[in-house]
Amino acid sequence: MSIQYPNGKRYRTNQQLNKPNASIAYGGRGMSFEADIDESNQFYLMKEKAVIHKKPTPIQIVQVDYPKRSAAVIKEAYFKQASTTDYNGVYKGRYIDFEAKETKNKTSFPLQNIHLHQVNHMRTVVRQNGICFLLIRFFYTQEVYLLDAPTLISFYDNQKERKSIKKADIETYGHMVHTGYQPFVDYLRTVDELYIK
Amino acid sequence: MSIQYPNGKRYRTNQQLNKPNASIAYGGRGMSFEADIDESNQFYLMKEKAVIHKKPTPIQIVQVDYPKRSAAVIKEAYFKQASTTDYNGVYKGRYIDFEAKETKNKTSFPLQNIHLHQVNHMRTVVRQNGICFLLIRFFYTQEVYLLDAPTLISFYDNQKERKSIKKADIETYGHMVHTGYQPFVDYLRTVDELYIK
Repeated sequence: MSIQYPNGKRYRTNQQLNKPNASIAYGGRGMSFEADIDESNQFYLMKEKAVIHKKPTPIQIVQVDYPKRSAAVIKEAYFKQASTTDYNGVYKGRYIDFEAKETKNKTSFPLQNIHLHQVNHMRTVVRQNGICFLLIRFFYTQEVYLLDAPTLISFYDNQKERKSIKKADIETYGHMVHTGYQPFVDYLRTVDELYIK
Repeated sequence: MSIQYPNGKRYRTNQQLNKPNASIAYGGRGMSFEADIDESNQFYLMKEKAVIHKKPTPIQIVQVDYPKRSAAVIKEAYFKQASTTDYNGVYKGRYIDFEAKETKNKTSFPLQNIHLHQVNHMRTVVRQNGICFLLIRFFYTQEVYLLDAPTLISFYDNQKERKSIKKADIETYGHMVHTGYQPFVDYLRTVDELYIK
């Protein structure tokens, strides 16, 4: 679905091309996908279409120094596990809440990418009538799917030995997201089709 | 407006009583008010009334160590200025977004408590039809007021020499928030009256 440029590749800046390796530094997978989502959110914000931000990474601060005449320096801190999803905001008055994950798996999406806390957060958002979903990108094909939270929760709750969702099931129960240029990941178009009447 | 207990004081745990001093450690004013808002949000969550969380403090990470067989340690990081408000979430399907500030000033609310970035964020939320406001607590009286974002923005944009909002104006243009026990700060009751038909 993505727009192909003359060299057969999607348009990307060098900075973005470098992101998959840079991702190792800050808490794991999906940094490149995260950069694309951030760009899309910036685009939506600029066009006054939606206000959606990534939440800051939660940090447990242990020690802070206050040097004279300069800014406070955090000298010891640890990454905390997120208790909610990473992205939320407002679109046409509605509350939007989602998680975005990329996988290098070609045939399925491993459910260990999603924490129980996040699934439970999604349950509460759905109960409050918020719009809640998971965006999945398959790294090798660059396909992006939107999986509605109730569907994801159902897969999560019914996982047995197989702790993953088959790609075929994502194709069946999920919704393909248009990708291209500005925004890279046009997930609000899919949100319009699914949730906004 | 708050419920008074036999000793004439609001019920508080020792931990909460200690918070005003503890607040100096992590980025300033309003830690005690923040604790009360967090408690209220926990109460709303538990009662399945709303899903509203404080965003993590934004941190600029400079150096991370990866000791063998233990968790990554952040060795150098700095506090960043927030580009959005601190709290957001969903209530009855609607997007809720607010900032909460406490002041020890008895006659006015100093506008330096609110950053330009946050005011601009509020503008974008209002345009998207989100419910957006500022909660102000006057430390010495423990009165809490909700000031609707458009009203706050108007005061912010029209500040001249006097870089504050008079308490009398907050009493006139704001809305008193019921405070008591469970939740301490029942701001959703005020939201119901103002925004939810």
